[in-house]
Order: sequence, then structure tokens, then C-alpha cells
Amino acid sequence: MQNSTWIIGARPFGGALSDVRVSGAIIDAIAPHGERAPAAGDAVIDGAGMLLLPGFVEGHTHLDKTTWGMPWYRNAVGARLVDRIENERVWRAQSGHDAARSSRALALEFLRRGTTRLRTHVDIDTDARLRHLESVLATRDALADVLDMQIVAFPQSGVMKRAGTREWLDAALREGAHVLGALDPAAIDGDPAASLDTTFALATKHGKPIDIHLHEPGELGAFTFDLLLDRVEAHGYQGRVVVSHAFCLGALPDARRGALFERIARDCIGILTTAPASVSVPPFREARASGVTLFGGNDGVRDTWTPFGSPDMLERAMLIAMRYDLRRDDDLAAAFDCVSTEAARACGFERYGLAPGMRADLVLVDAETVAHAVAMRPARRFVMANGVVIPENFSR
Amino acid sequence: MQNSTWIIGARPFGGALSDVRVSGAIIDAIAPHGERAPAAGDAVIDGAGMLLLPGFVEGHTHLDKTTWGMPWYRNAVGARLVDRIENERVWRAQSGHDAARSSRALALEFLRRGTTRLRTHVDIDTDARLRHLESVLATRDALADVLDMQIVAFPQSGVMKRAGTREWLDAALREGAHVLGALDPAAIDGDPAASLDTTFALATKHGKPIDIHLHEPGELGAFTFDLLLDRVEAHGYQGRVVVSHAFCLGALPDARRGALFERIARDCIGILTTAPASVSVPPFREARASGVTLFGGNDGVRDTWTPFGSPDMLERAMLIAMRYDLRRDDDLAAAFDCVSTEAARACGFERYGLAPGMRADLVLVDAETVAHAVAMRPARRFVMANGVVIPENFSR
Repeated sequence: MQNSTWIIGARPFGGALSDVRVSGAIIDAIAPHGERAPAAGDAVIDGAGMLLLPGFVEGHTHLDKTTWGMPWYRNAVGARLVDRIENERVWRAQSGHDAARSSRALALEFLRRGTTRLRTHVDIDTDARLRHLESVLATRDALADVLDMQIVAFPQSGVMKRAGTREWLDAALREGAHVLGALDPAAIDGDPAASLDTTFALATKHGKPIDIHLHEPGELGAFTFDLLLDRVEAHGYQGRVVVSHAFCLGALPDARRGALFERIARDCIGILTTAPASVSVPPFREARASGVTLFGGNDGVRDTWTPFGSPDMLERAMLIAMRYDLRRDDDLAAAFDCVSTEAARACGFERYGLAPGMRADLVLVDAETVAHAVAMRPARRFVMANGVVIPENFSR
Repeated sequence: MQNSTWIIGARPFGGALSDVRVSGAIIDAIAPHGERAPAAGDAVIDGAGMLLLPGFVEGHTHLDKTTWGMPWYRNAVGARLVDRIENERVWRAQSGHDAARSSRALALEFLRRGTTRLRTHVDIDTDARLRHLESVLATRDALADVLDMQIVAFPQSGVMKRAGTREWLDAALREGAHVLGALDPAAIDGDPAASLDTTFALATKHGKPIDIHLHEPGELGAFTFDLLLDRVEAHGYQGRVVVSHAFCLGALPDARRGALFERIARDCIGILTTAPASVSVPPFREARASGVTLFGGNDGVRDTWTPFGSPDMLERAMLIAMRYDLRRDDDLAAAFDCVSTEAARACGFERYGLAPGMRADLVLVDAETVAHAVAMRPARRFVMANGVVIPENFSR
């Protein structure tokens, strides 16, 4: 029989001192500290009274775009969306950017800082075809034993604007993308009904879930959201759709938003927010009160779109708390849920959590409470991913 | 003659390799790298091509309230302003909080991370009287050779609500406070004209500048702002007043805001923002275009009001950039100005900047550009404050 690893004397979520036994890649026991003794030959890690958290979950990033590990990208891009799209296209062609190398560098940094599950969107378009997908699949394969990565086939230029995009998305789903992405059916594709129909036709063909980036503001976004929900209900896609950003939910009259939230909850739509400080965001307390799963992610990390973003998901939890003016310890713990439990639920990451039977994804930090960890973002003192210890200088 | 210290081969603001000579507490030469040779006996520090920045400026914090260096404060406070004020009063009385010890612990951490100038507000009220002032004065004295600290005598409970407050503020200004604070003349004191008159009477009596915390929203805030400007002009206080927060400037019709900005610029009022993500903020580009000095600070750091805040002013610059959706390198450099040049100008910190004749406040970080430093907030590789080298574990 294989020996186990014990984390002794840690405090899950800041609670009572506990001992955690990991066998293979699974947490197979959590007991009050000292109640059970390690067997001969078991490895023992001293939790030293530290805060024990489950591995973090990055709910929305773009590994294929990052410049992580490269010289600093000097951003002189115009402010319009089209400026950013065009700038990235030119940069991709001329910079020598290697998406395989950069995505791996960033994924490794996520792991070192305790993120063990990650959903990444990968551009699929008629220029790049499957090139970025192949790069990120290489990173996924290289880290498959430690990092649970979902890949979204994402049409950054829309699904309808350029002939052939749909066929490349189709190919991407065949080649191993787990989720079908989509983007502003009205504002980008200019034909919301047809755009959504195309997306659902592709997704249902492959039996894959959907993650749609909806930046459309106010009433336009709400209009598109309703069209989306019509199709969720028609195709039985309840619980299989994430709406990312959903800025519109932060800028609707109360009654309109309330009705939409009811329907979002009924259809089990996950709502992803990066908690941007400069635009409207889905309201936090109302989402939770409505039973809507609201979760968090970075969006891009250090790419041609943004100089910001961090592979430290505790920082994202802090930004979420700041955006929603959360200050109490219980509220900061709820912000942490957005980059852990809620993100795992919305994305469908399995066997997630600090409980027997769950995947052994564990983080120790020197903090008293979850709120303390969110506010201070202390160094990771111990990270385990799928039962594998991740040292500070972990590489592949 | 005293020997000098040279920082050799660093890049001021990311520019060309340069050598900086410090004699005593003053920068006395900046030359292209290699143009001049250190004299025998001079100390030489290798800049290693790193980014050289001036010491950072914290424009608004509350050292007397922080729990820095204490066990984590578990926040379970209600959401209303009165809840927070009352909670702090009880906590101050019962927690054993030692404002001298905590303010020194936090001030030291500011120094270690490169902040060499700091404006702190200190509560003056009829309960505490001058107790917190004396604590922070002790910290100021202990660090006087390295940290340039301004103390604002701040009536956290308003200047008119409790009889006797004005007399304690008067005493605080006699005892060494540098600036007179004030708070929401309408929303807290309930009598904006009389409250402002009281503040100006006290300030002019002592010849001290004013820093007023104006949280009042929208048209109410704008109304109070105009009353304030009337008194600035009547008393010849142009260039001697800071308005902190000024949420109202982010929530006015364009024409109203434009007119107010013109007057603010003409009266040389400094505007302090913490760049909060959850409320309206003074518009960044319009402030700069109007010639208004907009600068940054934390407000509280890890106190009973907020679990957030950080002694790393690069983090505050990042939050400012995020709040205003600044992404370009030149815009991130402007965000850095808010915690350096602009803050020094608004607060009146003297001999500030990277130029001969200025105080030797220097920071080296491993970054290519100012934007890179703001986005990544890298470790401080070298800090000098008033000519004194501040090691990583600097203490007093």
C-alpha cells in the first residue's frame, strides 16, 4: 500500500487545528489535530497552525496572450476596442511571441502561488486558426498531472464576422477544447440572434458547455442576455453556460435586473467578473441573494490588452472585495469563495474542496483568517496540486 | 570634506544609464553613466541598470488607527458611517491598542518599501484629546532623520458636534500638528458655513494649511466645495488647501463639474484620491487637463475601518491606474506621479525629486519602465531616505 502524506496542525479556513491525510492525489481524511497518528513511512508536513485553503481557481484568463517571462511590453495602444484587437494582431505577427513558452511560464507561476484549476480562453480565428490552441494544449499536457486546465475555444473577432471562423471553432472543439466561447453577439457580430444560434449549434453538436464574453452595456446587454437565456432553455443548457463580464447587470433599473437575476438563477448561469474598478459590475449581494453563482478571474495577465493581472488569485479576491466595498471578515471570505468554491462550481471543476474524497489541492499561508489572507496576500508556505508538492521554484 | 555616495549605472524613470552622487542628504549631481568618476573614499552602489525612482509619497493615511504589527483585527462592523465611528471608539478603549507602537511599525514598513514622505491624519476629539497626536509625534521624532512626516490634526467626529473639539484642535496645532483637518461640514457638522468658518478661523490663527475630507456626494458635495472656495479666496488660502476624496467631482453634470474644476485650478486646490473602486472619483484626465493637482494615498491601512491598504505606494499607483482604466505606459507613469511628484506638490514637501539639490530619497527596483514597476510592484532593491540607506530589515 502506498504511503500517505499528512499535513499536521493546520487550520482549514481558519478553523480548529486539524490534520489532513492525502493518499495519492486524494484527501482521504481530515481529523481534529492529534486524533489520529500517521502510519510508519507516511510523510509529515508541519502545518504550524497556519491557514489551510483549497487550491485556488482562476475562472477566466487568456494564457495564449500573455507576455509573462518576456521583456516588458510597452503599451502605447489606442483606447478603442478595435485599436486593441488590431494592435494585438500586428504584435502577434511581428513580436516573435511564443504562446507555448509564455503560457507555460504563466501557468507555472499560477501553480507556485496556489492555483490548481484554471479556465483559459484561447483565440481561434481565421488568421491564427489552431495555432494558439496547440500552444496552450502543449502547456496543458506538460502540467496535466498538477494543473486542472479547461480550454475555451474563443472567437476574439466574433463568430460571424469572418467567414471560416465557425469551421475553425468546430475543429478546435474536435482537437480538445473543452468549452465553446463567444463574444458580444450584438456589438461585435451585429446579428445577436444568428450569432447565438451559431454558438448553440456548435456547442450542442459537440456536447460542450458555453462561456460567452458579454461586454454589451445596459439595455443592449440585457436584451442579448434574454436571447441567450431563450436558447439555454430551448436546448436544455441549464447549468452549462457561463456569462463572463456581464457589465450590463450593474447598470439596469432594479426591476429589470431583478427579473433577469431570477431567470439567471433558474437557468443556473454562472457569472464571471474580474471586478473591474472602472466599469459597472454585476451586483455582489444581489447575485448571492438570488442564488446566482458569481465567481472571479483575471482576464488577461500582462498582455497587449492590459499591463495588469496577477497569477496570485488572493490578489483577485482582494480586488473583488475592494470593488464591492466588502470589509468584514465574513464578506472577505465570500470574496475568496469567488476564486475557489464558486469558480469550481461554475466551471465544473470536479472533486474540489477541503473534504475527504476531494482532489488534494492545498495551500498553506501564514494568516489567521481567510480575510487576513485576502487582505495581506502572504507568501505561499506550502502548495500541493493533485497530490504533488509544488516547491517555490517549481518548473517543468 | 565629507565623502559622497554614488549610485552608478541606474536609469532615472527608465531613461538612460546615469550616475547619481549623494552628498550628505542631498543629490548633488546626476550625470551620464561613466562621465564622472567617484573620488577616493566615496561609497559606490551598483545600480545594475535598474529603474531609479524618487522616494514615494503617501498623501493621506491614518497612522494612529492602524493595527499594523498586531494580531489580525476581525472586522464585524456594520456598514454605516456611524457604526464605524462608534466601533472604533469602543475598540480604542478596550483593545489595548498602542498608537505609538503601531504607527511606528507601519511607518517603518512604508520606509522599507520606499516611501520617504508621508502625510498622516491624526484623530483629535474630546475623548482622545491629544493622546493620538502624542503617539504619532513620538513616531515622527523617532524617524525624523529619514521620514518626512506631516501631521494633520483631524476632527474625526466633526469640529462642531462636540463642544470642546475646537479647543483641542487649537492645542494640537500648538503642539506640532502641521495641518488642520476637517470633515464633511454639511453631512457631519450639519452647518456647512459655520463649520468652514470655524476651520478657517483656526487655520489662519496658526497660519497652517488645511486638508478637508469631503465625502459628501453629488450636488451636496459641490455646494460645500463652493462654500470652501469662497473662504479660500476670502482668506488668500490659494495653494494651501487639499480636498481629500471629493467623491462629488465624479458624479456631477459635465458643465457643473467643468466650472468647479476651473475654480479649483485657479485656487490651486490639491485633490487627494485613494481611487476607491466602489464609489465615484474625481475624473483623472479632466483634472490633469484642467491643471488640477490630483494625487494619491491609502487612507487607512489595516484598521477597524478597512482591512485593506498597503505601505507599498506602487500598489496604490496600480489601484489608481486600474480605477481610471489607465493601461498605456505613459498613463501608468502618470499614475505614479500621483504617489510622487503630484503628492509632493500638493502637500508641500520640499526639495522633492530626482534632480541636483533635491533631498536624497531614492528607490531602485528591477523594472524596465515606470509602468512596469507600477504593474508588477517588484521588491525594493535599494532605498535611501534623506541620504540614509534603508536596509530591508530597517528598524528603530
